[in-house]
Amino acid sequence: MRYQLFYWTGIQGRGEFVRLALEDAGADYVDVARVHGDGAMQPFLDGAKPGVTPFAPPFLKAGRQVIAHVANILHYLGPALALVPPSEARRLQALQWQLTIADFVTEIHDSHHPLGGSLYYEEQRKEAARRAEAFRRDRLGRFLGYFERELAAAGGHHALGRHSYVDLSLFQLMRGLEYAYPKAMRRQARKLPHLRALADRVEQRPNIAAYLASPRRLAFNTQGIFRHYPELDG
Amino acid sequence: MRYQLFYWTGIQGRGEFVRLALEDAGADYVDVARVHGDGAMQPFLDGAKPGVTPFAPPFLKAGRQVIAHVANILHYLGPALALVPPSEARRLQALQWQLTIADFVTEIHDSHHPLGGSLYYEEQRKEAARRAEAFRRDRLGRFLGYFERELAAAGGHHALGRHSYVDLSLFQLMRGLEYAYPKAMRRQARKLPHLRALADRVEQRPNIAAYLASPRRLAFNTQGIFRHYPELDG
Repeated sequence: MRYQLFYWTGIQGRGEFVRLALEDAGADYVDVARVHGDGAMQPFLDGAKPGVTPFAPPFLKAGRQVIAHVANILHYLGPALALVPPSEARRLQALQWQLTIADFVTEIHDSHHPLGGSLYYEEQRKEAARRAEAFRRDRLGRFLGYFERELAAAGGHHALGRHSYVDLSLFQLMRGLEYAYPKAMRRQARKLPHLRALADRVEQRPNIAAYLASPRRLAFNTQGIFRHYPELDG
Repeated sequence: MRYQLFYWTGIQGRGEFVRLALEDAGADYVDVARVHGDGAMQPFLDGAKPGVTPFAPPFLKAGRQVIAHVANILHYLGPALALVPPSEARRLQALQWQLTIADFVTEIHDSHHPLGGSLYYEEQRKEAARRAEAFRRDRLGRFLGYFERELAAAGGHHALGRHSYVDLSLFQLMRGLEYAYPKAMRRQARKLPHLRALADRVEQRPNIAAYLASPRRLAFNTQGIFRHYPELDG
């Protein structure tokens, strides 16, 4: 199966969580917008294709199926890419992890866009300063502490006791936060030994290491979800 | 199977999307916190139970499984309650709908809490006024227009061409928004014939009508997701 991934060019964004799974598994896929431009997504977003229209990228085309939302795509890909334990109960656990990660990703994004995505950062800097302060104080440690404890409870090495797409997403989360909030993350570091070790191990997986060294891995920047604005880092 | 639903007392909140599915299907369930108090959830949230700890309510206990996140719970319950078409492809479509609804629910919540849930509304009224304005202008019609078009494309009667948990969630979304943003919703009404008719049909389903007339259905209030603050309604 040759998968077609559709996501905005120029940023890692939410698409990166899917990309990491495809890369880690050595899957055959085309990153369609990077080849044909963002316009290639429009007919899908306009509802001109069969099936349920994606509300937004990322979405994946697999044969005739079009699947949107990161957690849904990974839920679908998990068994085919051997990136989830096969039982239904374990797949639900993976989906639960991924949905908690998705909620955290939204809060990370909103820390620089508290008034929503329809205004530029520059139009909401004052509000972002207040939101980012609350984020660093009340949410960052709460989410990461939760993931750290769950990881420890699962044996310390893998979110689901064995390698899965959840580990890949946790790696992305850690690297994104280390980029966006370096000072706040340095204050968290001591409390997150399992998460940090997991991120390091994922980074050394051969397919991931090759991907990270390739031009396919874009650098973090101030257009994506994880943005480094020093004024938001305390 | 007797299901145990865990969610905060006193509000409909995110738990209501699960409750509507259980009620519509006439499932055997206990709304645990309403019987034993919110404290009954704490051992689960503290990680003192087997399995993946819920990050937050709602969560469902089904036999020995504990499942968190609305979309995950409905994905699990769908087949057992005959509230989703049985094929894997259709289940993924239902999950995609539900995840888009979940994103919208988060934006609806954030329209009154743009700086996050760790501050009271009264501490972020000014920011909420700006966010709600952007929400009414850029997001409300965009999400509802998307759902209306997808509903029309599916034949106009059901999100998935037949009754499913998605229809129940769309009903809840419409009633919640009509409570929270009555003026903005009156301006949308003409453009949403299918969504409005669907909400009316869901409301008349015998089990839903009985539920809505029962004391189990709490009234909308200014503690939940859908809050009516006249100053945010333009």
